[in-house]
Amino acid sequence: MAVIETRFTRAFGLKHPILSAPMARVAGGALAAAVTRAGGLGLIGGGYGDAGWITAEFGAAGNEAVGCGLITWRLAERPEVLDVVLGRSPRAVFLSFGDPAPYAPAIAEAGAALICQVQSMDSARAAVSAGARVIVAQGAEAGGHAGQRATMTLVPEVADYLRRAAPETLLLAAGGIADGRGLAAALMLGADGVLMGTRFWAAAEALVHENQVAAAVAADGDATVRTSSVDVVRGLDWPAGFGLRVMGNEFSARWDGDLDGLRANAAEEAERWSAAYEAGDVAVANPIAGEGIGLIKGRLPAAEIIEDTVAEAKSLLGGGWKRDV
Amino acid sequence: MAVIETRFTRAFGLKHPILSAPMARVAGGALAAAVTRAGGLGLIGGGYGDAGWITAEFGAAGNEAVGCGLITWRLAERPEVLDVVLGRSPRAVFLSFGDPAPYAPAIAEAGAALICQVQSMDSARAAVSAGARVIVAQGAEAGGHAGQRATMTLVPEVADYLRRAAPETLLLAAGGIADGRGLAAALMLGADGVLMGTRFWAAAEALVHENQVAAAVAADGDATVRTSSVDVVRGLDWPAGFGLRVMGNEFSARWDGDLDGLRANAAEEAERWSAAYEAGDVAVANPIAGEGIGLIKGRLPAAEIIEDTVAEAKSLLGGGWKRDV
Repeated sequence: MAVIETRFTRAFGLKHPILSAPMARVAGGALAAAVTRAGGLGLIGGGYGDAGWITAEFGAAGNEAVGCGLITWRLAERPEVLDVVLGRSPRAVFLSFGDPAPYAPAIAEAGAALICQVQSMDSARAAVSAGARVIVAQGAEAGGHAGQRATMTLVPEVADYLRRAAPETLLLAAGGIADGRGLAAALMLGADGVLMGTRFWAAAEALVHENQVAAAVAADGDATVRTSSVDVVRGLDWPAGFGLRVMGNEFSARWDGDLDGLRANAAEEAERWSAAYEAGDVAVANPIAGEGIGLIKGRLPAAEIIEDTVAEAKSLLGGGWKRDV
Repeated sequence: MAVIETRFTRAFGLKHPILSAPMARVAGGALAAAVTRAGGLGLIGGGYGDAGWITAEFGAAGNEAVGCGLITWRLAERPEVLDVVLGRSPRAVFLSFGDPAPYAPAIAEAGAALICQVQSMDSARAAVSAGARVIVAQGAEAGGHAGQRATMTLVPEVADYLRRAAPETLLLAAGGIADGRGLAAALMLGADGVLMGTRFWAAAEALVHENQVAAAVAADGDATVRTSSVDVVRGLDWPAGFGLRVMGNEFSARWDGDLDGLRANAAEEAERWSAAYEAGDVAVANPIAGEGIGLIKGRLPAAEIIEDTVAEAKSLLGGGWKRDV
């Protein structure tokens, strides 16, 4: 099988420089374990910090070495969740959307690698200050929450910064990377590997209704929008500066320009949206996916996604590629 | 000198797969000619269609084979400008932001290549219908006007579409490409070359005040914003769906949330903004540049920009690269 060796694969003992995004409640233990088993590094989507769910999904991952991601501003409201995660001896803890510094000492003490996802140069500097082992530079073409920068510029700019300020810190690219072309491009931009979210959101092992994946496969990449309506209806009070990318539908079109109206109908709309999410009614419950949906042709097991991605990248890179410092 | 050969260089007889963006009133004849002389293809920024300016800048380009770009929705209001451009025997006519179909026959008859910049899959399909020789897939990390998609996903998705629907049509990537890393990444994504705007906006030959370039060099890529205020103050009535990216400053921070207030003070603010633009007062007049400013280290002649970009890309690509269909 094709191999692309980078500082990231060597540092983490991986076969492939691919990290799966810790998509909240979507990336369960089965997906994370499948990614690790296939030679990448899988992450459980701890998200908003439901300790029971996290514990169950670590159980589902079995003995595979997986990590767990948490939303940092939410962790600040319930810091005890970090102890739950660290109690499972994760390979890595992935923090995004907030200052990671308060949590870095406990993570280091537990022997887990700290991976910080950043959306700007300011947050990249904060991640270095916190002692991150890996920085994931995430562009706003990503599904779910992200910042304002794009992958194409943020990755090389963070690479330049790390070369000066923290040359041992590894760099992964995230946002819009859904196949081997994206992996090869990310390596050209100076990354040591990639994080893929939307592509694994569509994996067979992801906890996503089949109707959602079918809608994404049928759509082109123009079908996503950034909207606050899906956070409002879920009662999530996100800090300024972050946006949510989802597939647009009747729900977001109805409410995006009238968030006050949505709040006035909060109870009813929340019930309607949640029921639709469970039922796979994509006209009401928006699939939470990124622009990369336009590159996804079907629902595959995570191992096939990884194999296809690496084989395509290796072919583009001329048969193999090794990135040194 | 390093060479990267692609379908684009072969079709246009170029040394390098690099097109300079036709930035309105910024890309004059001197810049376009310098890009062509250095082995790329230079475009004059015909923009909103000032026939006198366009004629003068073709004159400034001398005998170099350059093209000219026009804003398509504006051309619809003054179609006679196309005759002015075609009267100068341009190497190519570049159309963006509107339906190119009405202008394609005259461009073909004049023997100029039609290059269509697109921001979405819908506009890519329209460009193919119009018979574009080259499609430029532009991401919203670009400076100036752009759509909603990002370069990282739009380029491979358009590449897939062209492979099915119009395999002879060439594809360039635009948006956030400012150095050899971006060029190499674009080739991995399936492009036959790149268009660079912001990097040439900072070229020695560009018609940009030195204070603007200095501000961009000093800033990181987080310093840009999308704002309607700079179109409103210039009296430009852009169609929905396009956004303007500029460096944020006091002016855009003051007015972006109060466009009605800006319109109420239109005459005064327009005079203040224009005077500041001429004087290089970047606290008032926003530099119109993209996220790539974070990758620009200084103001260089266009020929050096091209040489550095190609050399860096060639090094990343392993010493040379040839892209076939």
